[in-house]
Amino acid sequence: MKLAVDAMGGDYAPKQIVMGAIEAVKKYDCEIVLVGDREKIEAEIKANNAQNLDRLTIHHTTEVIEMGEHPVEAVRKKKDSSLVVATKLVKTGECDGVLSAGSTGAATTAATLFLRTIKGVDKPSIATPLPTKDGLVLLLDSGAIVDSKPKDLTEMALMGSIYSQYVYGIDNPKVGLLNVGEEETKGNKKVQTTYPMLKGMNSINFIGNVEGRDIPTGMADVVICDGFVGNIVLKFAEGLAVTLLDLIKDAIKNGGIFAKLGAVLVMPALKKLGKRLDVTEYGGAPLLGVNGCCIICHGSSDAKSICSAINVANEYVKNNVVDRIRDSIEKEEMLADDNNEEK
Amino acid sequence: MKLAVDAMGGDYAPKQIVMGAIEAVKKYDCEIVLVGDREKIEAEIKANNAQNLDRLTIHHTTEVIEMGEHPVEAVRKKKDSSLVVATKLVKTGECDGVLSAGSTGAATTAATLFLRTIKGVDKPSIATPLPTKDGLVLLLDSGAIVDSKPKDLTEMALMGSIYSQYVYGIDNPKVGLLNVGEEETKGNKKVQTTYPMLKGMNSINFIGNVEGRDIPTGMADVVICDGFVGNIVLKFAEGLAVTLLDLIKDAIKNGGIFAKLGAVLVMPALKKLGKRLDVTEYGGAPLLGVNGCCIICHGSSDAKSICSAINVANEYVKNNVVDRIRDSIEKEEMLADDNNEEK
Repeated sequence: MKLAVDAMGGDYAPKQIVMGAIEAVKKYDCEIVLVGDREKIEAEIKANNAQNLDRLTIHHTTEVIEMGEHPVEAVRKKKDSSLVVATKLVKTGECDGVLSAGSTGAATTAATLFLRTIKGVDKPSIATPLPTKDGLVLLLDSGAIVDSKPKDLTEMALMGSIYSQYVYGIDNPKVGLLNVGEEETKGNKKVQTTYPMLKGMNSINFIGNVEGRDIPTGMADVVICDGFVGNIVLKFAEGLAVTLLDLIKDAIKNGGIFAKLGAVLVMPALKKLGKRLDVTEYGGAPLLGVNGCCIICHGSSDAKSICSAINVANEYVKNNVVDRIRDSIEKEEMLADDNNEEK
Repeated sequence: MKLAVDAMGGDYAPKQIVMGAIEAVKKYDCEIVLVGDREKIEAEIKANNAQNLDRLTIHHTTEVIEMGEHPVEAVRKKKDSSLVVATKLVKTGECDGVLSAGSTGAATTAATLFLRTIKGVDKPSIATPLPTKDGLVLLLDSGAIVDSKPKDLTEMALMGSIYSQYVYGIDNPKVGLLNVGEEETKGNKKVQTTYPMLKGMNSINFIGNVEGRDIPTGMADVVICDGFVGNIVLKFAEGLAVTLLDLIKDAIKNGGIFAKLGAVLVMPALKKLGKRLDVTEYGGAPLLGVNGCCIICHGSSDAKSICSAINVANEYVKNNVVDRIRDSIEKEEMLADDNNEEK
């Protein structure tokens, strides 16, 4: 198991990325290639007294893709960027997977361009884990396909289902279609067309429509939606969490001495809950549908989240998620062909 | 000022609806016609010792539209339902506005069918207020138009802007287009087409794209989106609030004696915050774009939220929101025609 980690991508790169990689090689059975500026990476390794870890190597690159850059242009132009080189290490077979906390658009572009999509998959999609009442739900697509077609949504259902089963260990994951109502006839044209297609699929456990309010309850293990919708839901959740926390802090600050004392007493219980709800504990979001393991991490990832994401990448590779997706897509296509012939 | 209130619509009808109406006639300068089963309404009035309120009258009807019914069929068939009759009281000019906590689909259908849309408006949309860091944001459409066109989105921008200004008293309200990124070129085809149209409008203060995370911060006073997206965001917020509250309660319950004591001490401060974040304080959601005031309340509305919604309806009518929308739409259309001629 060998993973290429883009050491230069992310708000806290290279420091937190390198620290996460150090933690991961100590904790998990994997080799890591840190891709980026050798001097900077070596300085971080030294600062963490980790010079003697032989499962941690450096692949030197001279360029970095910045957050504001146009993904396609940046990936085409910056051939010696940490992201492009890390992705190509998977293409050549030198590494089993790639991980980046840099620009999501650039990571998606690089993976699509160099690893190509799995036969039968039109476009890859991003699956983001969200905490629920007593577990987690995988929301996809969360931003890669903003004008998805019904066929894209069926591919997401299949890929999300496999990922949920083999990486999170959820048996026969329940797949829901995000909609404005429960009934099959509800929603816009896209989901109305998609519903019967999902219903006809053999390899997924389709439970029908789920509404916005069902996402956090864990009614479904995999929630399927267009990337425009998914991205807005995810960012809304993020904004809500930050705003709510600020408001609670303010309320306690202005609540006088009793409120402050109460906050101190209640904190340990809430910290435990906060830890469970912290998405960074669940690692990054996989780009599903390309020929290789590609994990996209949040821009604000710290060492802990990088380390969790490396664990996720490990499970992804170990469980042959790509091969399983390839097989499933082939089977569903054969099934669809049979059905068409019968008609 | 005379409002028709559907006394039979909502999870807690007629009890909470009648109680809300009683509270409102005492508190605000308005007359209320409770539309529904006379016997049941009278029983509630009697239970609240409110027989002597002469600004509260009853209009007897024999039918009720249930939540599960098909909106169009139900509205066409149940001619003596409380909702249909209440809406028709606005059509005939007997009342200035209608308010219902029953089926949103049926209320939208009845208003569209009997009050008709304002000239120039293709379809009405629902504007829902959401609490933000230090105020509120109006999100529309929140479910009436699930396959909206760019023109629908521009109408929402204009109508939401007028509503925000005249009902919530926000001066020159900031209008944002909900998107997956800030840049003009981001998003799906629909929002990409809508962006320059909003930019070209004279009567709104368009601030550009806003992302999901910007909704709760109050970056915009009015957030425009397709009804499919808006409905999912709103229901997601609702589900998240319920789930989070449950989780916090569990965490405190399992946190031992100190956590429980802390919770007691911190509660007054949090209750104050909770009251501010409680959407029911902001009244119902208006159906904008029909020739008349139509306020849709949450199915779970209690007396307090019905009373706030009646206040909102009052402001709506008093400030001639319908006329203002009609004038603005006319002006924007003339402007668009001029621009086309110039070209």
